[in-house]
Amino acid sequence: MPKKILLQFDCDPQPSTFDAVVAVDAGADVLLRHGGVTPDDVVPLVHGAMFTRGGADLASTAIFVGGSDVAAAERVYDRIRATFFGPVRVGVMLDPAGANTTASAAVVAAARHLPLGDTAAAGRLHALVLGGTGPVGQRVARLLARKGVAVTVASRSRSRAADVCARIEAVVPGARLAAVESAAGASAGPWREAVERADLVVAAGAAGATLLDAAGRALARSARVLVDLNAVPPAGIAGIEAADRAREDGGAVVYGALGVGGTKMKIHRAAIATLFESAAAALDAEEMLAIGERV
Amino acid sequence: MPKKILLQFDCDPQPSTFDAVVAVDAGADVLLRHGGVTPDDVVPLVHGAMFTRGGADLASTAIFVGGSDVAAAERVYDRIRATFFGPVRVGVMLDPAGANTTASAAVVAAARHLPLGDTAAAGRLHALVLGGTGPVGQRVARLLARKGVAVTVASRSRSRAADVCARIEAVVPGARLAAVESAAGASAGPWREAVERADLVVAAGAAGATLLDAAGRALARSARVLVDLNAVPPAGIAGIEAADRAREDGGAVVYGALGVGGTKMKIHRAAIATLFESAAAALDAEEMLAIGERV
Amino acid sequence: MPKKILLQFDCDPQPSTFDAVVAVDAGADVLLRHGGVTPDDVVPLVHGAMFTRGGADLASTAIFVGGSDVAAAERVYDRIRATFFGPVRVGVMLDPAGANTTASAAVVAAARHLPLGDTAAAGRLHALVLGGTGPVGQRVARLLARKGVAVTVASRSRSRAADVCARIEAVVPGARLAAVESAAGASAGPWREAVERADLVVAAGAAGATLLDAAGRALARSARVLVDLNAVPPAGIAGIEAADRAREDGGAVVYGALGVGGTKMKIHRAAIATLFESAAAALDAEEMLAIGERV
Repeated sequence: MPKKILLQFDCDPQPSTFDAVVAVDAGADVLLRHGGVTPDDVVPLVHGAMFTRGGADLASTAIFVGGSDVAAAERVYDRIRATFFGPVRVGVMLDPAGANTTASAAVVAAARHLPLGDTAAAGRLHALVLGGTGPVGQRVARLLARKGVAVTVASRSRSRAADVCARIEAVVPGARLAAVESAAGASAGPWREAVERADLVVAAGAAGATLLDAAGRALARSARVLVDLNAVPPAGIAGIEAADRAREDGGAVVYGALGVGGTKMKIHRAAIATLFESAAAALDAEEMLAIGERV
Repeated sequence: MPKKILLQFDCDPQPSTFDAVVAVDAGADVLLRHGGVTPDDVVPLVHGAMFTRGGADLASTAIFVGGSDVAAAERVYDRIRATFFGPVRVGVMLDPAGANTTASAAVVAAARHLPLGDTAAAGRLHALVLGGTGPVGQRVARLLARKGVAVTVASRSRSRAADVCARIEAVVPGARLAAVESAAGASAGPWREAVERADLVVAAGAAGATLLDAAGRALARSARVLVDLNAVPPAGIAGIEAADRAREDGGAVVYGALGVGGTKMKIHRAAIATLFESAAAALDAEEMLAIGERV
Repeated sequence: MPKKILLQFDCDPQPSTFDAVVAVDAGADVLLRHGGVTPDDVVPLVHGAMFTRGGADLASTAIFVGGSDVAAAERVYDRIRATFFGPVRVGVMLDPAGANTTASAAVVAAARHLPLGDTAAAGRLHALVLGGTGPVGQRVARLLARKGVAVTVASRSRSRAADVCARIEAVVPGARLAAVESAAGASAGPWREAVERADLVVAAGAAGATLLDAAGRALARSARVLVDLNAVPPAGIAGIEAADRAREDGGAVVYGALGVGGTKMKIHRAAIATLFESAAAALDAEEMLAIGERV
């Protein structure tokens, strides 16, 4: 059995130490770390994974794509997959800025309290994703739409929210999506309606932005689960603390960023381990959610 | 027994993953990888290998020099060897763009069918190296010249071919070399004579260039072995496929790039292992051929 | 027990291979190497160490800071320590250009022959540090001042020597320090007095500079120990060879750079091992001297 070698391709100049430590703890024997990776670098780096080990041993080499610029990492990921041909491929995982593991963990947390696994029941649910145009928010919306949930994507810009909805609709047949402009407090209109009817609220905005203030949260009377993925005060959703983990609060169950963090780490480690089980593994948000539903 | 540490010095900004995976599979416990290495970087990097372990433990540290720019890698290799003094040295191996392992593997393949190990018999052989001024072609010519074979170096530029011959003559006493300008098909003159009398033809040109077309190959009636090191269609020698490995074809034995690849990989791995057997190891093409003759 | 992961932060573009090999030999299982590290890079790199392993496992991650620019490395070290909070921290060690391990080793060597461990007796000793404003010299002066020794810092520039004294006085209460301008031979004045009364002379200047010539050394009649940390001829102190290790010479005991080198390496390895014993470890010169006094 050859050593498990993980190629870490990071779009930032200094490759992430976070991703490296998790990879070691998940069982990678050797890391080949590359910073500042662009799509133009990909072909020779991937050929080195494709042409050095044969047959079943190919599964002992894998590639992790990360970095703080999610769009740049996605371009690298796409180029990697386009470089493979036939069975000459290795497992590859995309998790820039932890966006996929975080989004998956948020949905796993919600599914503990909502019937997301039952298509008919999930089809009766409404979700509101605050900060829904960011890397994590987009993925939360996509994952929920695939479960059949009706999802409202909220953003400071309604047009960017509508773009995200259109992109999800293109890949999720039958998705039910709506875009709204975020508003403060209890303002009337589509925003207020979205807050009032949401069974699930997930806040995935930038650090330091309050996306649902106390007045806004008071409207969310239907919400059975609220997840705030912001780890830095002030809270993204009023009244949620980073360490909250399935805490009962005002008739709902609430999660903070650290409360979701344990699940996120489990998904990250299990995804790395999955890479080494099959050279065909290609892990984006959906595959990580499936992993999260098992661990 | 200390861990086997391999310093990977690569002249490209992103160090080769190919060389790294092979090193791991060849038994290196730890890789210290450096990209964008220039001769000016060498002294402190090599001092770190020379002055950290003493005595017999020195042999557990070694250096691999690679990268796509063969001339740049040669300058780094030369600087490394100039930095050593007395017994304070570590094993070092030069294989930029796989040129040395590939050239050695081509000669090993030819030697299965031609008496290259018998000086008298080898002295009666003629070889034609197409693309003979490139990194691999130069080394194939040099290795064959050392065996006593009369070698014709072919290139689009006769003067560059003559330069290569002069350089080989400077290091191989008694070498019998000739330079010719490559031509298409069955053109008359020195090119045609070289093709007609060759016992061995090796094509080592750039990807996508046909160096011996069907008409030219029809002239190569004396050739007992033809090796095409080009892996990307069209073939460098008409009628040879990349996967050919000692296939009988038109009275000759033919090899393609992948058919030589298994031997190349064996030489690469065995060379890495050799580095850790003696701190005095300095592996260029000749030493890798000697390794290839044993594995 | 998780694998021992050492983050190597180096301020030079190519991270030190010396520090990497020593780390491997000291028991680090995995190195995460980063070159060209600036203070601006620190926060995300350190968060990757802080937030990936919990509780007792934090001690299995540690950080080494090195590079040839000592001041730049100190800024990185300070930023690392400012990034930690509460118990969420990992062991960190500062040894740019080997300054801390070398200075500690010089003091350990001197302590074999002088009563540095006895505060009252040490208080009666005088030391002269030549090249006392460089990275190693400053640290030798500081370590000796903490032992209670009266230290004269010598430099080509008296004002820079005075700056070093002021900086040491700011952190070592009751330190007795004096600054002198270096002079050649037996010149009169404060230089001559400092040489004549010194029980210990340590030369820590740049390679190739003679800091105490034969005439000067003839004045050092009180000196019981002379340590020359210069490894490249000419000697920093006339008559000392790099390999000298406690050699009796002219009524004194003398050490050269290589003679101190074995102790330096032991301190370096033991310091790395210490990092993995406690996440609270923060190893600067003083802590390395304490380690050197035990090994």
